[in-house]
Amino acid sequence: MGTPERIRAVAERVKRTHDEGASTAVVVSAMSGETNRLFELASQVSSAPLTREMDVLVSTGEQVTTALLSMALHDLGVPALSLQGHQVRIATDSAHGRARIRAIDKSRIEEAFDAGKVVVIAGFQGIDDQQNITTLGRGGSDTTAVAIAAALGADCEIYTDVDGVYTTDPRICSDARKLARVSHEEMLEMASLGAKVLQTRSVECALRFSVPVHVRSSFDDKGELSGTWVVPEEASMEEVLVSGIPADKNQAKITMQGVPDIPGLAGRIFGSLADDGVVVDMIVQNVSVDGDRTDLTFTVGKTDLDKAKKIVEDIREEIGANNVVASDSVGKVSVVGLGMRSHAGVAADMFKVLAAEGINIQMISTSEIKISVIVELDQVDRAVNVLHKKFFADREGTDSGTNA
Amino acid sequence: MGTPERIRAVAERVKRTHDEGASTAVVVSAMSGETNRLFELASQVSSAPLTREMDVLVSTGEQVTTALLSMALHDLGVPALSLQGHQVRIATDSAHGRARIRAIDKSRIEEAFDAGKVVVIAGFQGIDDQQNITTLGRGGSDTTAVAIAAALGADCEIYTDVDGVYTTDPRICSDARKLARVSHEEMLEMASLGAKVLQTRSVECALRFSVPVHVRSSFDDKGELSGTWVVPEEASMEEVLVSGIPADKNQAKITMQGVPDIPGLAGRIFGSLADDGVVVDMIVQNVSVDGDRTDLTFTVGKTDLDKAKKIVEDIREEIGANNVVASDSVGKVSVVGLGMRSHAGVAADMFKVLAAEGINIQMISTSEIKISVIVELDQVDRAVNVLHKKFFADREGTDSGTNA
Repeated sequence: MGTPERIRAVAERVKRTHDEGASTAVVVSAMSGETNRLFELASQVSSAPLTREMDVLVSTGEQVTTALLSMALHDLGVPALSLQGHQVRIATDSAHGRARIRAIDKSRIEEAFDAGKVVVIAGFQGIDDQQNITTLGRGGSDTTAVAIAAALGADCEIYTDVDGVYTTDPRICSDARKLARVSHEEMLEMASLGAKVLQTRSVECALRFSVPVHVRSSFDDKGELSGTWVVPEEASMEEVLVSGIPADKNQAKITMQGVPDIPGLAGRIFGSLADDGVVVDMIVQNVSVDGDRTDLTFTVGKTDLDKAKKIVEDIREEIGANNVVASDSVGKVSVVGLGMRSHAGVAADMFKVLAAEGINIQMISTSEIKISVIVELDQVDRAVNVLHKKFFADREGTDSGTNA
Repeated sequence: MGTPERIRAVAERVKRTHDEGASTAVVVSAMSGETNRLFELASQVSSAPLTREMDVLVSTGEQVTTALLSMALHDLGVPALSLQGHQVRIATDSAHGRARIRAIDKSRIEEAFDAGKVVVIAGFQGIDDQQNITTLGRGGSDTTAVAIAAALGADCEIYTDVDGVYTTDPRICSDARKLARVSHEEMLEMASLGAKVLQTRSVECALRFSVPVHVRSSFDDKGELSGTWVVPEEASMEEVLVSGIPADKNQAKITMQGVPDIPGLAGRIFGSLADDGVVVDMIVQNVSVDGDRTDLTFTVGKTDLDKAKKIVEDIREEIGANNVVASDSVGKVSVVGLGMRSHAGVAADMFKVLAAEGINIQMISTSEIKISVIVELDQVDRAVNVLHKKFFADREGTDSGTNA
């Protein structure tokens, strides 16, 4: 939803869907630049704006878009009704700026459908049980769209600035292929591992309510076969060993060396980090050599490095650990696929390929359907390329309707 | 509410009131330029924007101000809570763009007062019984303020860009004096006769619920004695013959000449005008000379002249009246005062003074507390000055606490 011209183009597209006879609900975000403009206004009146009032302020961005899109639809002869979070009743908790949706009342939407209307819903916003306006945080409009689709038992189309989900970042690996279908579980791993097409929370919501999500470019119009379908797991999906190789270059690593063996210490360190809002990703504790002292290493987002380092440094002094070492020149490369559940050997293949390239693995973390490794930042691109060659070279393009 | 700097200044003023221990509700309008910006956006997506969606769009202007003022107050250590029309529950009818307030639920406001908070309420907006967002039309924020004061049983301060209500337009008559007190009834006449300090509807609301309204400049800070108090009628007020001499230069006059005496014709003409949204002000029907045909003259706002002329021309053809003559070079000059109720002779004095100046009276309209005349536009200023001299020359300045 960039500009008024873009809104008119979206209206044309919605009209086509409406003309096909489908009941259509559209979830919109703010126009580009609008949220920044509102943040700038807030910074001019307050040094530390209240989160409750930030939500009141920024939620106007989506409200403006709902009104404009409804008007544009009406101009095309499509009856449309804008609805804000408090009108639909998108009930959330009270965590301003990062609220979670608890329930959606679909009655007002269905009433509008019965009257033949397209419903234009403000994304990103909701209302708590005290009628306070809340917002869902980053990627909130996607989450609203998925949650509305779940409430209506409908599919969800998400229009974005890329044309689907790729096996890996095309800027890193020119062989990257678009996936035609991917499971919610895989997409969830890929989203949290650095693929930026969908925010983790919207995928969580799609997984929880089994909502098929069609990710596609807002600039193409090729119908059902374009983009990527993110869907509930299908039997054939386990035949594919690897679906994607996400990479994340926004990682930083902190190591506390020579940690004395104190019960509850890890809880204390990671509790302090969590209290300060630092999200810790991978954690590795080396086996202590002399049975007395160990090394503890973990990763955080690059922007949290300074904060995390300070917290850990304070604890080090207190407990008498030897040293704290930090680096922001690391990256994470992962391999994701439902097939890993039933096929052994993916991890071994991954480590062998990286070793053959002389890429040193600094940390490892695994789940049922993914393996992540931390490597030097300047080796991330090479790691992605050799892994992509290993796991995708023997397969056809995935653009033709299936990635099996 | 011009700019972020202005919002910080308003916050300072609200803080002083709050620090004095008063429970304070502030009703805000949109920042300057904001409403125009939103109208411009609407015009870029639609040739005829839906009124329902215009209300959704423009009501964001006030919402932004509530959030910013609440943040600014918080920065000064004043606990504040923003409330939108749907959160207070300012219930209106469903006439989008010109809705009328039906009821205000004061419970959420009083709850915030009990918690020691300043409440910052979005003016101009409400919600109908289907939860649709409505707006009140021009001067809507003033009306909201008066209605909130009525609900709370409080006084209402209205900050504007002038420092009070004047006996007449100071740009026309340099002798114009600020009124210290004026009755609701007089203010209502003055507002509808061209004094632009307060919109008619906010005064109607103040009259209906006996809300004392203190009109003052947002740039002065002289306390209770500054500005003008618009208050329920007081016994002493009838001692003053004339309180104000409002003038309105946005008038136009239409005359249908040689109208045949057809029953129900006036109803037909003015019904057609009303159907097209033309507000007719004064109407004069001349006695017919030959008992057969008459002249019918009425006034409308200058902007409605072309529309009104077309409607009247169509009816003229149909009924066979002789001619339609229109002029937009007329103006209205009025004399308003509670004292007219009990004192005869004001009208006679008015006509005498105008005649002595050679000013021709084209039309006359009277109510219990006002006399209005239509004169040539280029004679309006002179009429105001001679009438002001006649009715105010013998009185002291009215700035000292009473205009009696």
